Amino acid sequence: MSTDRLIYLPLGGAGEIGMNCYVYGFGPKGRERFIIVDLGVTFPDMDTTPGVDLILPDIDWIAERADRIDAIFITHAHEDHIGALAHLWPRLKAPIYARAFTAHIAHLKFAERGLDETAIHTTAAYPETVQAGPFTVAIAPIAHSIPESSALIIDTPIGRIVHTGDFKLDQTPGVGEAYEPKLWASIAKPGVRALVCDSTNVFVPHPGRSEASVGPAIVDLVKSAKGMVVATTFASNIARVRTLAEAGHQAGRSVVLLGRAMKRMITAGLHVGILKDFPKTVAPEDTAGIARENLMLLSTGSQGERRAATAQLSRGKYLGLSLKPGDLFLFSSKTIPGNEKSVSRIINAFSEMGVDVVDDSSDTYHVSGHANRPDLQAFHRIIAPKFLIPMHGEHRHLREHVKLAQSGGMVAALAPNGVMLELSGNAPTVVEHVETGRTYLDGRVQIGALDGVVRDRIRMALNGHVVVTLIIEAGEPLGDAWCEVMGLPELGTSRAPLVEVLEADVTRFLMRAGKKALKDDAKLVEEIRRIVRKVAQDEVGKKPEVSVVVSRLAG
Amino acid sequence: MSTDRLIYLPLGGAGEIGMNCYVYGFGPKGRERFIIVDLGVTFPDMDTTPGVDLILPDIDWIAERADRIDAIFITHAHEDHIGALAHLWPRLKAPIYARAFTAHIAHLKFAERGLDETAIHTTAAYPETVQAGPFTVAIAPIAHSIPESSALIIDTPIGRIVHTGDFKLDQTPGVGEAYEPKLWASIAKPGVRALVCDSTNVFVPHPGRSEASVGPAIVDLVKSAKGMVVATTFASNIARVRTLAEAGHQAGRSVVLLGRAMKRMITAGLHVGILKDFPKTVAPEDTAGIARENLMLLSTGSQGERRAATAQLSRGKYLGLSLKPGDLFLFSSKTIPGNEKSVSRIINAFSEMGVDVVDDSSDTYHVSGHANRPDLQAFHRIIAPKFLIPMHGEHRHLREHVKLAQSGGMVAALAPNGVMLELSGNAPTVVEHVETGRTYLDGRVQIGALDGVVRDRIRMALNGHVVVTLIIEAGEPLGDAWCEVMGLPELGTSRAPLVEVLEADVTRFLMRAGKKALKDDAKLVEEIRRIVRKVAQDEVGKKPEVSVVVSRLAG
Repeated sequence: MSTDRLIYLPLGGAGEIGMNCYVYGFGPKGRERFIIVDLGVTFPDMDTTPGVDLILPDIDWIAERADRIDAIFITHAHEDHIGALAHLWPRLKAPIYARAFTAHIAHLKFAERGLDETAIHTTAAYPETVQAGPFTVAIAPIAHSIPESSALIIDTPIGRIVHTGDFKLDQTPGVGEAYEPKLWASIAKPGVRALVCDSTNVFVPHPGRSEASVGPAIVDLVKSAKGMVVATTFASNIARVRTLAEAGHQAGRSVVLLGRAMKRMITAGLHVGILKDFPKTVAPEDTAGIARENLMLLSTGSQGERRAATAQLSRGKYLGLSLKPGDLFLFSSKTIPGNEKSVSRIINAFSEMGVDVVDDSSDTYHVSGHANRPDLQAFHRIIAPKFLIPMHGEHRHLREHVKLAQSGGMVAALAPNGVMLELSGNAPTVVEHVETGRTYLDGRVQIGALDGVVRDRIRMALNGHVVVTLIIEAGEPLGDAWCEVMGLPELGTSRAPLVEVLEADVTRFLMRAGKKALKDDAKLVEEIRRIVRKVAQDEVGKKPEVSVVVSRLAG
Repeated sequence: MSTDRLIYLPLGGAGEIGMNCYVYGFGPKGRERFIIVDLGVTFPDMDTTPGVDLILPDIDWIAERADRIDAIFITHAHEDHIGALAHLWPRLKAPIYARAFTAHIAHLKFAERGLDETAIHTTAAYPETVQAGPFTVAIAPIAHSIPESSALIIDTPIGRIVHTGDFKLDQTPGVGEAYEPKLWASIAKPGVRALVCDSTNVFVPHPGRSEASVGPAIVDLVKSAKGMVVATTFASNIARVRTLAEAGHQAGRSVVLLGRAMKRMITAGLHVGILKDFPKTVAPEDTAGIARENLMLLSTGSQGERRAATAQLSRGKYLGLSLKPGDLFLFSSKTIPGNEKSVSRIINAFSEMGVDVVDDSSDTYHVSGHANRPDLQAFHRIIAPKFLIPMHGEHRHLREHVKLAQSGGMVAALAPNGVMLELSGNAPTVVEHVETGRTYLDGRVQIGALDGVVRDRIRMALNGHVVVTLIIEAGEPLGDAWCEVMGLPELGTSRAPLVEVLEADVTRFLMRAGKKALKDDAKLVEEIRRIVRKVAQDEVGKKPEVSVVVSRLAG
């Protein structure tokens, strides 16, 4: 039908690294059928989201059209692609398709929350396809830093879309399928209308190295170590975990897995059969008889996460194990921007213990899971799409990726979150701006990013909180006002306790205020707030958040 | 006298990058005379110090011995060396010595706080000396990223100490004195007992480049730019600011300084005469008639500081100026660890405006102010001290610097903050552990890091704050309890307003509680706190901070 249109709408992941969620639609305007690609999370921080547990994409737009969703595809099991699935699926209820390893992780998440696991369908790889409304989708293996990462080959009535997911051009990735140029040439052969492409490493100028290149360096390092060796990496990077374990094994060391995620991922890998030959491991409680120069620990927490095994080791003991002078700690990982301080806190703690730390600065013991700039160019050439649409990147990455594609003679369009592109015409066209944003998982509740809850927390953290309580009986203040002060210095510049100065000044105001002033709650609260902020500013130089509780007794 | 000892005690800066404060003492134990080198600050962050304005070293130890301080030396005018001077000097009251540019900045700080400026002495450079008790101190020019950075040549009755301050081996630093190998060889000639040495870049493997090397690259970049050019760097890096201004000038652009610090530093440089040939600038308000391709703005805020000119430009307008597609923004600076997110927020905002951003990733338009690993080795060899003591570094930097020195055959000692070394013997010996820490400047008040104020703020930010107010009259609860909730979701899992559930449960408890339970304030508060935390955990999955205000009426 000539009125059908093909649309692309990122709800997360385009304008940030994290929280991936992309929508494709096909059909007459307003009656399109949809598929969703990925439902990921991003992580909170103290600066902008204190107290928040997880950040989810705001999916209101697609949830309001849930009856038109034919499928949800998950490209791989990293949290920024799968982490929101169990939290948001109840509002979508569409069938979920993923390959075995990813589906296994989805099952664990659904089981944890008591959701209907029959919604999850384990799918064979390309050339097998899934029919989802007007879309015929194949899940094509591509290399990344987690097993079974996949690109999607999305065939629509008006042409093929290649959605890369996260990928790198690694022909020897260790665990999981290799990047196969021939496979991708054959996928591209019928012609590709749009390549929707990972942009993470568009600023990295050199070609990516293979996972296979880190093995020998790690083996050498472990062999030359004199004391205990501890290495950390992302638990989901099963290829790396195996490389590390094998290096320990080759050096005659007993391998110990530390941290729940590490064990869960290895178990998952063995369970779905992608991991066949993991070296024998020793449980932490069985290491007592083993000399420390014969131990190799693999621990979670490469990003400095406070509760992970690595951070616990840096604070002392973890399951009876502790580091000593002469031990070696290896970060076989990259520090994600924003985590520098947590990681460096841990490195310094190890330094104080006399432990030698090898971090990611030499670039020898880690490779990235994303295609670098020349790799992107190579992939552009192989796929040779009509349009290139960058995703999985901050705005600067997307913009640079557009420029890179254009410099190679391609048509490219920049579509950050909320920008709906129509891909049916001769060029990608912006057809709508959809309201998008973030939803916070806060304890057990989902709250909107603009609800003011987190804003209040930030204000209390910056300015402290004063609560004023007063009783009014028959229109007259009954006794003094009480102030409760939290997060402010005890003594002000007058050297009197701040709380006493506040109480005296508010009480003085109450005593002088006329009956009329005491009648109007809103005005009374406003005036007391003004007084408290002024006194606190004079005494300690801060304007706190103020809550006023007025209790009225009949008298 | 054979009982005299020479001691070194870092109170800040050894175990962190920032907050430098070092004490040297000479004399009989317990009766030493002291000099202090530097009184710097470090900067707060949301993770650990929300709401704090500045972090100062805890100087209790030396303040208790203030009558034995003969002098305070300030090596240079970076905030991590001079920032605490005006805040802490009232507790020390010793004369301050610094070279002209540094002394000028000290004067500005003293004037701001109404302190006695006669305490500040402007000192000529080496070979001039200052006599300070048993110490004869010369302030020796050395290159860094601010004019007139200095090392101290501290002569004691038992030998010479070289305290480097911050330095690099730059023989063409642009503004300020060059590093002169011959000068340092002559200083080393009489023999140096201890070299107390900057460790910041001990992990950077290649030799440092000169400031002079960035000029041509910047000129080329500015000449090739088509639109307006904006560049940011540290305002105190006057050499760089001049290089940038000259590049603009050479490209036929009018140069505009944006941001208070930028103007203050240039004015200071001209005032003390270290800057003689700064290109003519145009005031922001006089740029209306100038085509944007003829403008070059130099703006403060290279670290993403929210209120600085750069951040304001990224949010829209600053003094009538704004960026447009095709403009160029240059970070002629390095992002200090911890500031990555703020800087990248700004880069993305510029990207959204269509501005091309050149950041520090290429290492072309910026050089560091600190000696790299091979430079440190070269300096070790020139000074050839009896002992090397690393300072100005996190623990890992100090430890690596010790190893580096030892690998060159030197005797080196690791002394983090609070570790007092005796330098009089044949090897540096730890003689005492002094309690050190951090003092927070919080608004107008100094508070101890362990006072609990900041801990309460962090807890409120993570968990929210609930205040419960109740009135007890003649031993009976008068009416219901009121709850004031701040920083928690409005609705819980029961879909009822959290505040109502809390009030109902606390009131129910009050109604059921016996007279005895209502009599004991401590127990009552404890029980209510327990109830509130349990209800909040059930409803929203968070355990808030709870304050309980009990008002007792006689009845």
